[in-house]
Amino acid sequence: MYTLYYSPGSANMLVHLILLECGAPYTLERVDLDAGQQRSAAYLALNPNGVVPTLVIDGVPHGEAAALATLLLERHPDAALAPAADDPQRADYLQWMFYLANSQQSLFRQWFYPGDHLPAAADSIKEAARIGIEAGWSRINAHLATHGPYLLGNRFSAVDLYVLMLMRWSRNMPRPATSWPHLAELAARLKARASWKQLCAAEGLVEWA
Amino acid sequence: MYTLYYSPGSANMLVHLILLECGAPYTLERVDLDAGQQRSAAYLALNPNGVVPTLVIDGVPHGEAAALATLLLERHPDAALAPAADDPQRADYLQWMFYLANSQQSLFRQWFYPGDHLPAAADSIKEAARIGIEAGWSRINAHLATHGPYLLGNRFSAVDLYVLMLMRWSRNMPRPATSWPHLAELAARLKARASWKQLCAAEGLVEWA
Repeated sequence: MYTLYYSPGSANMLVHLILLECGAPYTLERVDLDAGQQRSAAYLALNPNGVVPTLVIDGVPHGEAAALATLLLERHPDAALAPAADDPQRADYLQWMFYLANSQQSLFRQWFYPGDHLPAAADSIKEAARIGIEAGWSRINAHLATHGPYLLGNRFSAVDLYVLMLMRWSRNMPRPATSWPHLAELAARLKARASWKQLCAAEGLVEWA
Repeated sequence: MYTLYYSPGSANMLVHLILLECGAPYTLERVDLDAGQQRSAAYLALNPNGVVPTLVIDGVPHGEAAALATLLLERHPDAALAPAADDPQRADYLQWMFYLANSQQSLFRQWFYPGDHLPAAADSIKEAARIGIEAGWSRINAHLATHGPYLLGNRFSAVDLYVLMLMRWSRNMPRPATSWPHLAELAARLKARASWKQLCAAEGLVEWA
């Protein structure tokens, strides 16, 4: 049994989608970010960085969305959402997971919270993040054009769910991810899955749902 | 047999240290970044992003340092540089790997290449990166103070090697990582390992060696 601490539409989406795809039993605990609940003593005891998601596994809390995704897929190999360690596609899978974490997702952090480190430079940092995110979409779109329809070719995997979450985050940007045709096609394909509909219902997502 | 494409002191260090710790056979191919060799057609065929490292495994090139580290440790479980999938410390290990990739390492990219996306804002972006990197060192130092001496407590692992690489990158910053006492202690401990001396000799590192 897992407990997922979440805020609707936040980085917990990746973990939540994987729990749904795995058919793993879980309960949800909402963290009210607007009310500052992520900085409460109770939540900081679970997640010292005060961010979502936190996943409690066997009574122990853990963080970092992409790490939780990787961990869940190791615990639920039957879901076949990641190539196994001896699979030739394992390297591609890990490469995309880390690329999405250290490039695209980290730029989104700067897009959403541009004044975190240097408030006076927030506008410039936000603009640089936008340019970087769009370059990332171009890169992923070009990959899909020749190696799609999924990130790993004909094989659906957790990296597609990761891209889906990030695409949703871009919905109100000047150029949403779905402006790129192969990303739009991937989004449509993934949003047709039962897991996406279950996620939107469970997190109460109505926009881009 | 592995082939590692590297530039002295670049992100290849993590992969290189792991190859050395595993005792895996490998050959080195230097990429001359100053001469722009990373943008040559021959190198782009191996690494479409034009960055180091590239690791050729069984004739197939792969990228992303942290992904390569993860992959190598799955291929060489006897080196015991990562907790296995059924180990209670696995979650902590993955959490640190992704944290270092998406927070500390991505900020270093902005510190070293601040004008990549928006040249006019390079100074602000560099300054914000410095503040973010220092906040990261404070966080890791605090963790080591109560849970050290390694990132995973008494257990040396690949995340320590990852931190070591990033610490070296900070050596010419206003506040190098070793200004934090527990990071300094970790650096000294890791630099005493045979793998570090072998790495410095093989990559020709003299500064902070």
